[in-house]
Amino acid sequence: MTFAKLTDLEVLDKMADAARAAILPFFRQAGLTAENKLEAGFDPVTVADRAGELAMRAILADHRPEDGIWGEEFGQTPGQSGRTWVLDPIDGTRGFISGTPTWGVLIALSDDTGPILGAIDQPYIGERFVGSPEAARMTGPMGIQNLTTRSAAPLSQAIVFTTFPEVGTADEGAAFHAVARHAKLTRYGMDCYAYALLASGQVDLVIEAGLNAYDIQGPIAVVQAAGGIVTDWQGSPAHMGGRAIAAANPEIHAEALEILKSY
Amino acid sequence: MTFAKLTDLEVLDKMADAARAAILPFFRQAGLTAENKLEAGFDPVTVADRAGELAMRAILADHRPEDGIWGEEFGQTPGQSGRTWVLDPIDGTRGFISGTPTWGVLIALSDDTGPILGAIDQPYIGERFVGSPEAARMTGPMGIQNLTTRSAAPLSQAIVFTTFPEVGTADEGAAFHAVARHAKLTRYGMDCYAYALLASGQVDLVIEAGLNAYDIQGPIAVVQAAGGIVTDWQGSPAHMGGRAIAAANPEIHAEALEILKSY
Repeated sequence: MTFAKLTDLEVLDKMADAARAAILPFFRQAGLTAENKLEAGFDPVTVADRAGELAMRAILADHRPEDGIWGEEFGQTPGQSGRTWVLDPIDGTRGFISGTPTWGVLIALSDDTGPILGAIDQPYIGERFVGSPEAARMTGPMGIQNLTTRSAAPLSQAIVFTTFPEVGTADEGAAFHAVARHAKLTRYGMDCYAYALLASGQVDLVIEAGLNAYDIQGPIAVVQAAGGIVTDWQGSPAHMGGRAIAAANPEIHAEALEILKSY
Repeated sequence: MTFAKLTDLEVLDKMADAARAAILPFFRQAGLTAENKLEAGFDPVTVADRAGELAMRAILADHRPEDGIWGEEFGQTPGQSGRTWVLDPIDGTRGFISGTPTWGVLIALSDDTGPILGAIDQPYIGERFVGSPEAARMTGPMGIQNLTTRSAAPLSQAIVFTTFPEVGTADEGAAFHAVARHAKLTRYGMDCYAYALLASGQVDLVIEAGLNAYDIQGPIAVVQAAGGIVTDWQGSPAHMGGRAIAAANPEIHAEALEILKSY
Protein backbone atom coordinates (compact mmCIF):
# COMPACT_ATOMS: atom_id res chain seq x y z
CA MET A 1 0.00 0.00 0.00
CA THR A 2 1.28 3.49 -0.78
CA PHE A 3 0.28 6.75 0.87
CA ALA A 4 0.13 10.34 -0.31
CA LYS A 5 3.25 12.14 0.89
CA LEU A 6 2.42 14.13 3.98
CA THR A 7 4.55 16.85 5.53
CA ASP A 8 6.14 16.17 8.90
CA LEU A 9 3.61 18.49 10.52
CA GLU A 10 0.74 16.59 8.90
CA VAL A 11 2.16 13.31 10.18
CA LEU A 12 2.50 14.86 13.65
CA ASP A 13 -1.15 15.94 13.58
CA LYS A 14 -2.32 12.50 12.49
CA MET A 15 -0.30 10.91 15.28
CA ALA A 16 -1.74 13.27 17.90
CA ASP A 17 -5.27 12.64 16.61
CA ALA A 18 -4.73 8.88 16.80
CA ALA A 19 -3.29 9.06 20.32
CA ARG A 20 -6.25 11.18 21.49
CA ALA A 21 -8.73 8.67 20.18
CA ALA A 22 -6.85 5.77 21.76
CA ILE A 23 -6.30 7.31 25.19
CA LEU A 24 -9.33 9.48 25.94
CA PRO A 25 -11.79 6.59 26.52
CA PHE A 26 -9.65 5.56 29.53
CA PHE A 27 -9.55 9.02 31.14
CA ARG A 28 -11.68 9.50 34.28
CA GLN A 29 -13.20 6.06 33.90
CA ALA A 30 -14.36 4.18 36.98
CA GLY A 31 -11.91 1.60 38.23
CA LEU A 32 -8.85 3.51 37.09
CA THR A 33 -7.23 2.82 40.43
CA ALA A 34 -4.17 1.22 41.90
CA GLU A 35 -6.29 -1.72 43.09
CA ASN A 36 -6.87 -2.78 39.49
CA LYS A 37 -3.17 -2.68 38.91
CA LEU A 38 -2.59 -5.17 41.70
CA GLU A 39 -5.38 -7.49 40.59
CA ALA A 40 -4.77 -7.53 36.85
CA GLY A 41 -1.00 -7.25 36.79
CA PHE A 42 -1.09 -3.84 35.11
CA ASP A 43 -3.25 -0.77 35.45
CA PRO A 44 -5.66 0.92 33.01
CA VAL A 45 -3.34 3.89 32.61
CA THR A 46 -0.73 1.46 31.26
CA VAL A 47 -3.32 0.05 28.87
CA ALA A 48 -4.08 3.59 27.68
CA ASP A 49 -0.38 4.42 27.45
CA ARG A 50 0.30 1.38 25.26
CA ALA A 51 -2.79 1.94 23.10
CA GLY A 52 -1.67 5.53 22.53
CA GLU A 53 1.83 4.56 21.48
CA LEU A 54 0.64 1.76 19.21
CA ALA A 55 -1.75 4.17 17.50
CA MET A 56 1.10 6.59 16.84
CA ARG A 57 3.42 3.81 15.67
CA ALA A 58 0.78 2.68 13.17
CA ILE A 59 0.73 6.16 11.61
CA LEU A 60 4.52 6.13 11.36
CA ALA A 61 4.54 2.66 9.79
CA ASP A 62 2.29 4.01 7.03
CA HIS A 63 3.81 7.44 6.51
CA ARG A 64 7.39 7.41 7.82
CA PRO A 65 8.66 3.82 7.65
CA GLU A 66 12.23 5.08 7.14
CA ASP A 67 12.34 7.01 10.45
CA GLY A 68 13.32 5.58 13.81
CA ILE A 69 11.01 5.55 16.85
CA TRP A 70 11.80 5.97 20.55
CA GLY A 71 8.70 5.45 22.65
CA GLU A 72 8.20 5.37 26.40
CA GLU A 73 6.26 2.10 26.25
CA PHE A 74 7.89 0.08 23.45
CA GLY A 75 11.44 1.43 23.42
CA GLN A 76 13.65 2.09 20.41
CA THR A 77 12.99 1.00 16.84
CA PRO A 78 15.93 1.87 14.59
CA GLY A 79 15.39 3.73 11.31
CA GLN A 80 17.44 4.48 8.18
CA SER A 81 16.87 8.23 7.85
CA GLY A 82 18.84 9.62 10.79
CA ARG A 83 15.58 10.98 12.16
CA THR A 84 13.71 9.64 15.21
CA TRP A 85 10.16 10.18 16.46
CA VAL A 86 10.28 10.44 20.25
CA LEU A 87 6.95 9.56 21.90
CA ASP A 88 5.42 9.78 25.35
CA PRO A 89 1.77 8.76 24.95
CA ILE A 90 0.78 9.85 28.48
CA ASP A 91 3.19 12.23 30.13
CA GLY A 92 1.93 12.86 33.67
CA THR A 93 0.42 9.52 34.61
CA ARG A 94 -0.10 10.69 38.19
CA GLY A 95 -2.17 13.56 36.84
CA PHE A 96 -4.00 11.13 34.57
CA ILE A 97 -5.01 8.80 37.42
CA SER A 98 -6.13 11.83 39.46
CA GLY A 99 -8.38 13.13 36.67
CA THR A 100 -6.49 16.41 36.19
CA PRO A 101 -6.36 17.77 32.62
CA THR A 102 -2.61 18.39 32.94
CA TRP A 103 -1.22 15.21 31.34
CA GLY A 104 -0.40 15.24 27.67
CA VAL A 105 0.65 13.32 24.59
CA LEU A 106 4.22 14.34 23.77
CA ILE A 107 5.64 13.93 20.28
CA ALA A 108 8.97 15.10 18.86
CA LEU A 109 10.82 14.53 15.61
CA SER A 110 14.54 14.69 16.28
CA ASP A 111 17.85 14.44 14.49
CA ASP A 112 21.33 14.33 16.02
CA THR A 113 21.04 17.94 17.15
CA GLY A 114 17.81 17.45 19.08
CA PRO A 115 14.11 18.09 18.39
CA ILE A 116 13.18 19.65 15.03
CA LEU A 117 9.46 19.81 15.65
CA GLY A 118 7.09 18.61 18.31
CA ALA A 119 3.75 18.78 20.06
CA ILE A 120 2.10 18.81 23.47
CA ASP A 121 -1.49 17.59 23.15
CA GLN A 122 -4.12 17.71 25.93
CA PRO A 123 -6.91 15.48 24.65
CA TYR A 124 -9.56 16.20 27.30
CA ILE A 125 -9.51 19.99 26.88
CA GLY A 126 -8.89 19.54 23.18
CA GLU A 127 -5.74 21.65 23.09
CA ARG A 128 -2.76 21.06 20.83
CA PHE A 129 0.48 23.08 21.08
CA VAL A 130 2.79 22.57 18.09
CA GLY A 131 6.27 23.93 17.43
CA SER A 132 8.30 23.69 14.22
CA PRO A 133 10.96 25.77 12.46
CA GLU A 134 8.12 27.56 10.64
CA ALA A 135 5.75 28.39 13.48
CA ALA A 136 4.49 27.84 17.01
CA ARG A 137 0.74 27.51 17.20
CA MET A 138 -2.02 26.18 19.39
CA THR A 139 -5.53 25.02 18.67
CA GLY A 140 -8.02 24.86 21.54
CA PRO A 141 -11.39 25.97 22.93
CA MET A 142 -10.71 29.56 21.87
CA GLY A 143 -9.59 28.73 18.31
CA ILE A 144 -6.14 28.95 16.73
CA GLN A 145 -3.49 31.18 18.25
CA ASN A 146 0.20 31.84 17.66
CA LEU A 147 2.44 31.02 20.58
CA THR A 148 4.93 33.57 21.90
CA THR A 149 6.77 33.39 25.17
CA ARG A 150 6.85 36.32 27.59
CA SER A 151 9.27 39.17 27.20
CA ALA A 152 11.95 39.77 29.80
CA ALA A 153 11.09 40.62 33.39
CA PRO A 154 13.17 40.13 36.53
CA LEU A 155 12.88 36.87 38.47
CA SER A 156 11.17 38.80 41.26
CA GLN A 157 8.21 39.29 38.86
CA ALA A 158 8.26 35.73 37.49
CA ILE A 159 5.83 32.82 37.71
CA VAL A 160 7.71 29.52 38.17
CA PHE A 161 6.32 26.01 37.70
CA THR A 162 7.44 22.55 38.62
CA THR A 163 5.41 19.38 38.97
CA PHE A 164 5.93 18.52 42.63
CA PRO A 165 7.65 20.35 45.51
CA GLU A 166 10.37 17.72 46.03
CA VAL A 167 11.40 18.18 42.34
CA GLY A 168 13.96 15.34 42.41
CA THR A 169 16.76 14.55 44.83
CA ALA A 170 17.23 16.62 47.97
CA ASP A 171 19.92 18.71 46.22
CA GLU A 172 17.73 19.24 43.18
CA GLY A 173 14.84 20.30 45.42
CA ALA A 174 17.11 22.77 47.22
CA ALA A 175 18.26 24.24 43.90
CA PHE A 176 14.70 24.64 42.66
CA HIS A 177 13.54 26.31 45.85
CA ALA A 178 16.52 28.66 45.76
CA VAL A 179 15.13 29.94 42.45
CA ALA A 180 11.50 29.81 43.57
CA ARG A 181 12.22 31.88 46.68
CA HIS A 182 13.12 34.82 44.42
CA ALA A 183 10.06 34.47 42.18
CA LYS A 184 6.71 36.19 42.52
CA LEU A 185 4.67 33.00 42.37
CA THR A 186 5.44 29.26 42.40
CA ARG A 187 2.87 26.72 41.26
CA TYR A 188 2.83 22.93 41.18
CA GLY A 189 0.99 20.00 39.66
CA MET A 190 0.81 20.90 35.96
CA ASP A 191 2.90 18.05 34.49
CA CYS A 192 3.83 18.76 30.83
CA TYR A 193 1.04 21.35 30.63
CA ALA A 194 3.43 23.80 32.32
CA TYR A 195 5.58 23.88 29.15
CA ALA A 196 2.46 24.63 27.09
CA LEU A 197 1.72 27.57 29.40
CA LEU A 198 5.29 28.78 29.02
CA ALA A 199 5.02 28.63 25.23
CA SER A 200 1.69 30.48 25.49
CA GLY A 201 3.28 33.41 27.30
CA GLN A 202 1.52 32.69 30.60
CA VAL A 203 4.48 31.79 32.81
CA ASP A 204 8.21 32.54 32.91
CA LEU A 205 10.01 29.39 34.03
CA VAL A 206 9.51 25.62 34.25
CA ILE A 207 12.19 23.73 36.16
CA GLU A 208 12.28 19.94 36.53
CA ALA A 209 14.67 17.08 37.24
CA GLY A 210 14.76 13.33 36.72
CA LEU A 211 13.36 13.56 33.19
CA ASN A 212 13.59 11.03 30.39
CA ALA A 213 14.31 12.12 26.83
CA TYR A 214 10.69 11.46 25.82
CA ASP A 215 9.45 13.72 28.68
CA ILE A 216 11.24 16.79 27.36
CA GLN A 217 11.75 16.56 23.57
CA GLY A 218 8.19 17.53 22.63
CA PRO A 219 8.21 20.45 25.09
CA ILE A 220 11.64 21.60 23.80
CA ALA A 221 10.31 21.84 20.24
CA VAL A 222 7.21 23.79 21.31
CA VAL A 223 8.96 26.16 23.72
CA GLN A 224 11.85 26.94 21.34
CA ALA A 225 9.51 27.62 18.42
CA ALA A 226 7.60 30.05 20.63
CA GLY A 227 10.80 31.97 21.42
CA GLY A 228 11.85 30.30 24.65
CA ILE A 229 14.98 28.44 25.71
CA VAL A 230 15.36 24.95 27.18
CA THR A 231 18.68 23.70 28.59
CA ASP A 232 19.91 21.56 31.44
CA TRP A 233 20.93 23.27 34.71
CA GLN A 234 24.40 23.97 33.34
CA GLY A 235 23.16 25.61 30.15
CA SER A 236 23.86 22.56 27.94
CA PRO A 237 21.34 20.73 25.71
CA ALA A 238 18.56 19.03 27.68
CA HIS A 239 17.07 16.74 25.05
CA MET A 240 18.50 13.58 26.58
CA GLY A 241 16.59 14.25 29.80
CA GLY A 242 17.79 14.73 33.36
CA ARG A 243 17.51 18.26 34.74
CA ALA A 244 15.78 20.86 32.59
CA ILE A 245 15.03 24.56 32.77
CA ALA A 246 12.62 26.07 30.25
CA ALA A 247 12.65 29.85 30.16
CA ALA A 248 10.55 32.45 28.38
CA ASN A 249 13.53 34.56 27.33
CA PRO A 250 17.35 34.71 27.59
CA GLU A 251 17.31 37.20 30.47
CA ILE A 252 15.29 35.11 32.90
CA HIS A 253 17.09 31.97 31.74
CA ALA A 254 20.41 33.55 32.71
CA GLU A 255 19.12 34.82 36.05
CA ALA A 256 17.71 31.43 37.08
CA LEU A 257 20.66 29.46 35.69
CA GLU A 258 23.05 31.49 37.83
CA ILE A 259 21.27 30.15 40.92
CA LEU A 260 20.84 26.56 39.65
CA LYS A 261 24.48 26.26 38.58
CA SER A 262 25.71 26.65 42.13
CA TYR A 263 23.93 23.42 43.14
CA MET B 1 -40.48 44.18 34.05
CA THR B 2 -41.55 40.68 35.09
CA PHE B 3 -39.86 37.37 34.37
CA ALA B 4 -41.04 33.81 33.96
CA LYS B 5 -40.49 31.95 37.21
CA LEU B 6 -37.33 29.89 36.94
CA THR B 7 -36.28 27.12 39.28
CA ASP B 8 -33.26 27.71 41.51
CA LEU B 9 -31.21 25.40 39.27
CA GLU B 10 -32.22 27.36 36.18
CA VAL B 11 -31.19 30.60 37.89
CA LEU B 12 -27.87 28.98 38.86
CA ASP B 13 -27.24 27.96 35.25
CA LYS B 14 -28.05 31.44 33.95
CA MET B 15 -25.65 32.93 36.49
CA ALA B 16 -22.85 30.56 35.54
CA ASP B 17 -23.42 31.26 31.84
CA ALA B 18 -23.29 35.00 32.48
CA ALA B 19 -20.11 34.74 34.56
CA ARG B 20 -18.44 32.64 31.85
CA ALA B 21 -19.20 35.23 29.19
CA ALA B 22 -17.97 38.06 31.40
CA ILE B 23 -14.72 36.44 32.58
CA LEU B 24 -13.44 34.31 29.70
CA PRO B 25 -12.35 37.23 27.46
CA PHE B 26 -9.80 38.15 30.15
CA PHE B 27 -8.28 34.65 30.49
CA ARG B 28 -4.80 34.17 29.02
CA GLN B 29 -4.82 37.61 27.50
CA ALA B 30 -1.54 39.44 26.98
CA GLY B 31 -0.78 42.00 29.62
CA LEU B 32 -2.50 40.08 32.40
CA THR B 33 0.50 40.68 34.60
CA ALA B 34 1.42 42.24 37.87
CA GLU B 35 3.02 45.18 36.03
CA ASN B 36 -0.39 46.28 34.81
CA LYS B 37 -1.64 46.18 38.35
CA LEU B 38 1.05 48.58 39.44
CA GLU B 39 0.49 50.95 36.56
CA ALA B 40 -3.29 51.04 36.49
CA GLY B 41 -4.03 50.72 40.18
CA PHE B 42 -5.78 47.37 39.75
CA ASP B 43 -5.12 44.28 37.69
CA PRO B 44 -7.07 42.69 34.85
CA VAL B 45 -7.97 39.68 36.99
CA THR B 46 -9.75 42.10 39.32
CA VAL B 47 -11.58 43.58 36.35
CA ALA B 48 -12.66 40.08 35.30
CA ASP B 49 -13.60 39.19 38.88
CA ARG B 50 -15.83 42.26 39.17
CA ALA B 51 -17.36 41.80 35.73
CA GLY B 52 -18.22 38.20 36.64
CA GLU B 53 -19.88 39.13 39.90
CA LEU B 54 -21.85 42.00 38.35
CA ALA B 55 -23.10 39.66 35.62
CA MET B 56 -24.34 37.20 38.25
CA ARG B 57 -25.89 39.97 40.36
CA ALA B 58 -27.79 41.18 37.30
CA ILE B 59 -29.39 37.74 36.89
CA LEU B 60 -30.36 37.71 40.57
CA ALA B 61 -31.84 41.22 40.34
CA ASP B 62 -34.14 39.96 37.58
CA HIS B 63 -35.00 36.50 38.91
CA ARG B 64 -34.41 36.44 42.68
CA PRO B 65 -34.75 40.03 43.96
CA GLU B 66 -35.96 38.74 47.34
CA ASP B 67 -32.79 36.74 48.06
CA GLY B 68 -29.64 38.08 49.69
CA ILE B 69 -26.21 38.09 48.00
CA TRP B 70 -22.75 37.58 49.49
CA GLY B 71 -20.09 38.12 46.86
CA GLU B 72 -16.31 38.13 47.08
CA GLU B 73 -16.03 41.43 45.22
CA PHE B 74 -19.05 43.48 46.31
CA GLY B 75 -19.80 42.08 49.76
CA GLN B 76 -23.17 41.43 51.36
CA THR B 77 -26.52 42.60 50.03
CA PRO B 78 -29.32 41.74 52.48
CA GLY B 79 -32.46 39.93 51.27
CA GLN B 80 -35.93 39.22 52.68
CA SER B 81 -36.22 35.50 51.98
CA GLY B 82 -33.73 34.03 54.46
CA ARG B 83 -31.77 32.68 51.49
CA THR B 84 -28.41 33.99 50.26
CA TRP B 85 -26.49 33.48 47.00
CA VAL B 86 -22.82 33.14 47.84
CA LEU B 87 -20.53 34.04 44.91
CA ASP B 88 -16.86 33.79 44.06
CA PRO B 89 -16.54 34.88 40.42
CA ILE B 90 -12.90 33.73 40.11
CA ASP B 91 -11.78 31.27 42.74
CA GLY B 92 -8.09 30.60 42.20
CA THR B 93 -6.82 33.96 40.95
CA ARG B 94 -3.21 32.72 41.09
CA GLY B 95 -4.19 29.90 38.76
CA PHE B 96 -6.03 32.40 36.56
CA ILE B 97 -2.99 34.68 36.16
CA SER B 98 -0.83 31.62 35.39
CA GLY B 99 -3.15 30.41 32.63
CA THR B 100 -4.04 27.12 34.34
CA PRO B 101 -7.58 25.85 33.75
CA THR B 102 -8.01 25.16 37.48
CA TRP B 103 -9.79 28.33 38.60
CA GLY B 104 -13.55 28.37 38.71
CA VAL B 105 -16.74 30.33 39.17
CA LEU B 106 -18.25 29.27 42.50
CA ILE B 107 -21.95 29.72 43.23
CA ALA B 108 -24.00 28.52 46.19
CA LEU B 109 -27.54 29.12 47.39
CA SER B 110 -27.61 28.91 51.18
CA ASP B 111 -29.98 29.15 54.10
CA ASP B 112 -29.15 29.18 57.83
CA THR B 113 -28.02 25.55 57.68
CA GLY B 114 -25.51 26.05 54.86
CA PRO B 115 -25.49 25.47 51.10
CA ILE B 116 -28.65 24.00 49.52
CA LEU B 117 -27.33 23.89 45.97
CA GLY B 118 -24.24 25.05 44.18
CA ALA B 119 -21.88 24.91 41.25
CA ILE B 120 -18.22 24.83 40.28
CA ASP B 121 -17.82 26.12 36.71
CA GLN B 122 -14.59 25.98 34.67
CA PRO B 123 -15.26 28.29 31.72
CA TYR B 124 -12.18 27.56 29.61
CA ILE B 125 -12.65 23.78 29.52
CA GLY B 126 -16.40 24.29 29.42
CA GLU B 127 -17.12 22.12 32.45
CA ARG B 128 -19.90 22.72 34.97
CA PHE B 129 -20.31 20.65 38.14
CA VAL B 130 -23.69 21.18 39.84
CA GLY B 131 -25.02 19.77 43.11
CA SER B 132 -28.57 20.03 44.48
CA PRO B 133 -30.82 17.95 46.73
CA GLU B 134 -32.10 16.22 43.56
CA ALA B 135 -28.86 15.40 41.74
CA ALA B 136 -25.14 15.91 41.22
CA ARG B 137 -24.24 16.30 37.56
CA MET B 138 -21.53 17.61 35.31
CA THR B 139 -21.53 18.85 31.74
CA GLY B 140 -18.24 19.00 29.85
CA PRO B 141 -16.26 17.90 26.81
CA MET B 142 -17.49 14.33 27.21
CA GLY B 143 -21.17 15.23 27.63
CA ILE B 144 -23.40 14.97 30.70
CA GLN B 145 -22.46 12.67 33.55
CA ASN B 146 -23.75 11.96 37.05
CA LEU B 147 -21.30 12.70 39.83
CA THR B 148 -20.54 10.08 42.47
CA THR B 149 -17.67 10.16 44.91
CA ARG B 150 -15.35 7.18 45.39
CA SER B 151 -16.25 4.31 47.65
CA ALA B 152 -14.22 3.61 50.76
CA ALA B 153 -10.54 2.71 50.59
CA PRO B 154 -7.87 3.11 53.25
CA LEU B 155 -5.85 6.34 53.41
CA SER B 156 -2.81 4.38 52.23
CA GLN B 157 -4.61 3.99 48.87
CA ALA B 158 -5.90 7.56 48.72
CA ILE B 159 -5.17 10.51 46.42
CA VAL B 160 -5.03 13.77 48.42
CA PHE B 161 -5.17 17.31 47.04
CA THR B 162 -4.46 20.74 48.39
CA THR B 163 -3.68 23.94 46.51
CA PHE B 164 -0.16 24.71 47.74
CA PRO B 165 2.30 22.80 49.96
CA GLU B 166 2.32 25.38 52.76
CA VAL B 167 -1.50 24.96 53.07
CA GLY B 168 -1.90 27.78 55.62
CA THR B 169 -0.06 28.47 58.89
CA ALA B 170 2.92 26.31 59.91
CA ASP B 171 0.64 24.24 62.18
CA GLU B 172 -1.92 23.78 59.41
CA GLY B 173 0.82 22.73 57.01
CA ALA B 174 2.12 20.20 59.53
CA ALA B 175 -1.38 18.76 59.99
CA PHE B 176 -1.93 18.44 56.25
CA HIS B 177 1.40 16.73 55.68
CA ALA B 178 0.71 14.34 58.57
CA VAL B 179 -2.29 13.14 56.54
CA ALA B 180 -0.47 13.31 53.18
CA ARG B 181 2.40 11.17 54.46
CA HIS B 182 -0.04 8.27 54.85
CA ALA B 183 -1.62 8.72 51.42
CA LYS B 184 -0.67 7.03 48.16
CA LEU B 185 -0.38 10.26 46.19
CA THR B 186 -0.44 13.99 47.02
CA ARG B 187 -1.03 16.58 44.32
CA TYR B 188 -1.04 20.38 44.34
CA GLY B 189 -2.14 23.35 42.30
CA MET B 190 -5.74 22.52 41.38
CA ASP B 191 -7.55 25.38 43.20
CA CYS B 192 -11.32 24.72 43.38
CA TYR B 193 -11.02 22.18 40.57
CA ALA B 194 -9.85 19.67 43.19
CA TYR B 195 -13.38 19.61 44.67
CA ALA B 196 -14.82 18.94 41.22
CA LEU B 197 -12.45 15.98 40.87
CA LEU B 198 -13.53 14.71 44.30
CA ALA B 199 -17.20 14.94 43.29
CA SER B 200 -16.33 13.13 40.04
CA GLY B 201 -14.90 10.13 41.89
CA GLN B 202 -11.31 10.84 40.82
CA VAL B 203 -9.71 11.64 44.17
CA ASP B 204 -10.33 10.84 47.84
CA LEU B 205 -9.54 13.94 49.88
CA VAL B 206 -9.18 17.71 49.50
CA ILE B 207 -7.80 19.52 52.53
CA GLU B 208 -7.40 23.30 52.77
CA ALA B 209 -7.10 26.11 55.31
CA GLY B 210 -7.58 29.86 55.36
CA LEU B 211 -10.77 29.73 53.30
CA ASN B 212 -13.52 32.31 53.04
CA ALA B 213 -17.17 31.26 53.05
CA TYR B 214 -17.44 32.01 49.31
CA ASP B 215 -14.45 29.73 48.60
CA ILE B 216 -16.13 26.65 50.04
CA GLN B 217 -19.94 26.93 49.81
CA GLY B 218 -20.19 26.03 46.11
CA PRO B 219 -17.82 23.06 46.56
CA ILE B 220 -19.77 21.89 49.64
CA ALA B 221 -23.01 21.74 47.65
CA VAL B 222 -21.40 19.82 44.78
CA VAL B 223 -19.41 17.38 46.92
CA GLN B 224 -22.30 16.59 49.27
CA ALA B 225 -24.75 16.02 46.41
CA ALA B 226 -22.22 13.55 44.91
CA GLY B 227 -22.10 11.58 48.17
CA GLY B 228 -19.11 13.18 49.85
CA ILE B 229 -18.64 14.96 53.16
CA VAL B 230 -17.23 18.42 53.89
CA THR B 231 -16.46 19.59 57.42
CA ASP B 232 -13.87 21.65 59.24
CA TRP B 233 -10.90 19.86 60.82
CA GLN B 234 -12.92 19.14 63.96
CA GLY B 235 -15.85 17.59 62.09
CA SER B 236 -18.09 20.66 62.42
CA PRO B 237 -19.75 22.58 59.55
CA ALA B 238 -17.26 24.28 57.23
CA HIS B 239 -19.53 26.64 55.31
CA MET B 240 -18.26 29.75 57.07
CA GLY B 241 -14.74 29.04 55.82
CA GLY B 242 -11.48 28.48 57.66
CA ARG B 243 -10.13 24.93 57.58
CA ALA B 244 -11.94 22.40 55.41
CA ILE B 245 -11.68 18.72 54.65
CA ALA B 246 -13.70 17.29 51.77
CA ALA B 247 -13.85 13.51 51.70
CA ALA B 248 -15.23 10.99 49.24
CA ASN B 249 -16.86 8.83 51.94
CA PRO B 250 -17.35 8.63 55.73
CA GLU B 251 -14.56 6.09 56.21
CA ILE B 252 -11.75 8.15 54.74
CA HIS B 253 -13.20 11.29 56.33
CA ALA B 254 -12.92 9.63 59.75
CA GLU B 255 -9.41 8.32 59.10
CA ALA B 256 -8.08 11.72 57.99
CA LEU B 257 -9.98 13.67 60.66
CA GLU B 258 -8.39 11.57 63.38
CA ILE B 259 -4.99 12.87 62.25
CA LEU B 260 -6.09 16.48 61.64
CA LYS B 261 -7.84 16.75 65.03
CA SER B 262 -4.61 16.26 66.91
CA TYR B 263 -3.23 19.53 65.44
